[in-house]
Amino acid sequence: MNLTIVTSNAHKAQEVGAFFGGSLKLSQVSLDIPELRSENIEEIAYAKAQSAFEELKRPLIVDDTGFFIDAFNGFPGPYAAYVLRTVGVNGILKLMEGVTDRNASFVTSIGYADEREVRVFSGTIQGTIATEKRGAAGFGYDPIFLMGNRTLAEMALEEKSRVSHRARALSAFRDWFLVTHLK
Amino acid sequence: MNLTIVTSNAHKAQEVGAFFGGSLKLSQVSLDIPELRSENIEEIAYAKAQSAFEELKRPLIVDDTGFFIDAFNGFPGPYAAYVLRTVGVNGILKLMEGVTDRNASFVTSIGYADEREVRVFSGTIQGTIATEKRGAAGFGYDPIFLMGNRTLAEMALEEKSRVSHRARALSAFRDWFLVTHLK
Repeated sequence: MNLTIVTSNAHKAQEVGAFFGGSLKLSQVSLDIPELRSENIEEIAYAKAQSAFEELKRPLIVDDTGFFIDAFNGFPGPYAAYVLRTVGVNGILKLMEGVTDRNASFVTSIGYADEREVRVFSGTIQGTIATEKRGAAGFGYDPIFLMGNRTLAEMALEEKSRVSHRARALSAFRDWFLVTHLK
Repeated sequence: MNLTIVTSNAHKAQEVGAFFGGSLKLSQVSLDIPELRSENIEEIAYAKAQSAFEELKRPLIVDDTGFFIDAFNGFPGPYAAYVLRTVGVNGILKLMEGVTDRNASFVTSIGYADEREVRVFSGTIQGTIATEKRGAAGFGYDPIFLMGNRTLAEMALEEKSRVSHRARALSAFRDWFLVTHLK
């Protein structure tokens, strides 16, 4: 079974490959797809998978991740990557100064498309925003995202890969895909 | 000459109508168009005009506005409306505490589409971010956007309508449109 992952991030492709082990052949394609402006990660992943399939005409997955801070009505939400590049983690910490509700969540949606259908599988993790950066592993918001008393950047990759939003979305996708396509 | 403005904002339609006076018949249509995720306001307006024309098949304009803060690499940029709804003007003031480079700009792009072409016209204003909200007029970021020593919210509507980013974009569009379509 062949599956294409549409991403410009080789590391992400490797992570997904490792997730599936030898059960399927994963190839990576970098494709410039116009993205939908939406506050709904599932909707973005759905549209992205659909557009990518129109272009490539073969079974594929795409993903999209959002980061939602409760005190700011979900900001930065689907614009997590943009906000990271502009105000950055330090900007988020500054916004959170004196804020008591520190709840936040990550959502990853995997969009799958083939000639018959488009499906979306999501994974979420809940946590809180730390008051300062902690840990050297990971990337993005990891150093300020606490699960329990450790940030994602304080976890080893193996541990993060078990508990993360992306891992949860991938599990949901894998459970469905292996049963329906690899019997 | 008939022209359709695609917006859900009746006030905006009136403003544009007033801008043209009796020289053309403007009708408003509210249309749910999937928006492109891009950091380029002109590109967003172009895609929006194109999609709207595919739907409506008649000469139309759309607009898109971004708000760019230099110290934050352009944040909130095209996500100005989303950021206003989530972190709000107070969040922006908090982020700007202690920041010395207070330069910012507004950009509005008008996208025009008919059966022959799609064109984009833009207007920009430069200003600085105030240290606190001032003025009761206007909306959005107006109370913290200084042009000289007054915020946009301290200007009467007539004055703001002369100097604003939207007025500049509309002027550029009008100059082209009246010459090419109303000779």
